[in-house]
Amino acid sequence: MSKAIVLLSGGQDSTTSLYWARREFGDVLALSVLYGQRHRNELNGAAHIASMAGIPHEVVDIGTLLSALGGSALVDASKPLTLEGGIPDAAMPQGLPSSFVPGRNLFFLSVAAVHAAHAGVKDLVTGVCQTDYSGYPDCRRPFIDSLEQTLTLAMPSSLGPFKIHTPLMDLTKAQTVQMAKELPGCWDALRFTVTCYEGKRPGCGVCAACVLRKKGFDDAGEQDPAEAA
Amino acid sequence: MSKAIVLLSGGQDSTTSLYWARREFGDVLALSVLYGQRHRNELNGAAHIASMAGIPHEVVDIGTLLSALGGSALVDASKPLTLEGGIPDAAMPQGLPSSFVPGRNLFFLSVAAVHAAHAGVKDLVTGVCQTDYSGYPDCRRPFIDSLEQTLTLAMPSSLGPFKIHTPLMDLTKAQTVQMAKELPGCWDALRFTVTCYEGKRPGCGVCAACVLRKKGFDDAGEQDPAEAA
Repeated sequence: MSKAIVLLSGGQDSTTSLYWARREFGDVLALSVLYGQRHRNELNGAAHIASMAGIPHEVVDIGTLLSALGGSALVDASKPLTLEGGIPDAAMPQGLPSSFVPGRNLFFLSVAAVHAAHAGVKDLVTGVCQTDYSGYPDCRRPFIDSLEQTLTLAMPSSLGPFKIHTPLMDLTKAQTVQMAKELPGCWDALRFTVTCYEGKRPGCGVCAACVLRKKGFDDAGEQDPAEAA
Repeated sequence: MSKAIVLLSGGQDSTTSLYWARREFGDVLALSVLYGQRHRNELNGAAHIASMAGIPHEVVDIGTLLSALGGSALVDASKPLTLEGGIPDAAMPQGLPSSFVPGRNLFFLSVAAVHAAHAGVKDLVTGVCQTDYSGYPDCRRPFIDSLEQTLTLAMPSSLGPFKIHTPLMDLTKAQTVQMAKELPGCWDALRFTVTCYEGKRPGCGVCAACVLRKKGFDDAGEQDPAEAA
């Protein structure tokens, strides 16, 4: 059976993608990237979730790279986190969420690809989703398609071609909730996912990420297992 | 006049590219990436060369990222440096130089692009060269073309499109020497470039990198200014 590497942040989408990959591939490795997040709760959740899924878990620390390159509210606590725009960065266009970290998925998937190259793996899985992408350009399939080709060309041809699987790409949040119900073990793992920008579980309920998550469960007619716990 | 960011390692090719960019663009920033190189001599040279060129110089430290992802002889002193293959890595195909760092140009140019996005810059310059690329897949133009598109798609559309200039791409080493002679100030700056795998200046004369450099100057009928000093 083939092997895949899944980027696991410890949020709802990457957790659902992990269980999707467990069903689709015989052998899965979960990879989390430390990049100066405001809190470690999500990562602790990721470790617990991988353990629940019986999947090995590795953490790659890219240190201060992304924050050194230019702050986003996700890595700079002095900046307010909103989905309504207002990155305090002269070069960034208006209307982007302050949580946008330029290059984040580019670096995460590149890290996964280099890891994969050394491990002889060609299949990468990420939970990015263009349906409600909040203006993040690097969550759309054209970016993923282009990166897939770039990663393949970056490596010796015998190591590729790399394939980036995006099982949630065209799903609404409600459909992702439905998928999580259907994947064995996934619903239970959602109890340990962290979505809240403050790193709280259950979430604060008022930040933009919590509001979006709640809407998905409401639209699906389900109660969020993280809230029920 | 437009602004460009040049990746400057402090070697012969990136130094020549820096002076090319100084001629082509009104406003240039030199960017060096620290990634756990075996020695700092090249970087010290880069700082001196940027200063000679009157160009601001910044250093981005990506820490142990590349070495953590899997060793190459360039970042792991326990591995022998050769151009004749033999990476002690089961997944790597035979015939690649042990100096190949999987993903290096991918990360370097991604770092430059994110830096550029924050600075409102769209032009990136790198000294990669496919003529004598030694088997490095990420030194070829098809990789650069693909990455150019990927970087553009990764960022808000108003920040791009990004253009990656590769002035040395199709030149022989002798032609690069000739270009350096024609670019004002460049020949003098070559005195401070480091090519030797041991970080020596003048070079050790016997490592693969020194041998290739010498051949370029010999073919051009010139004496290497770093040797003449």
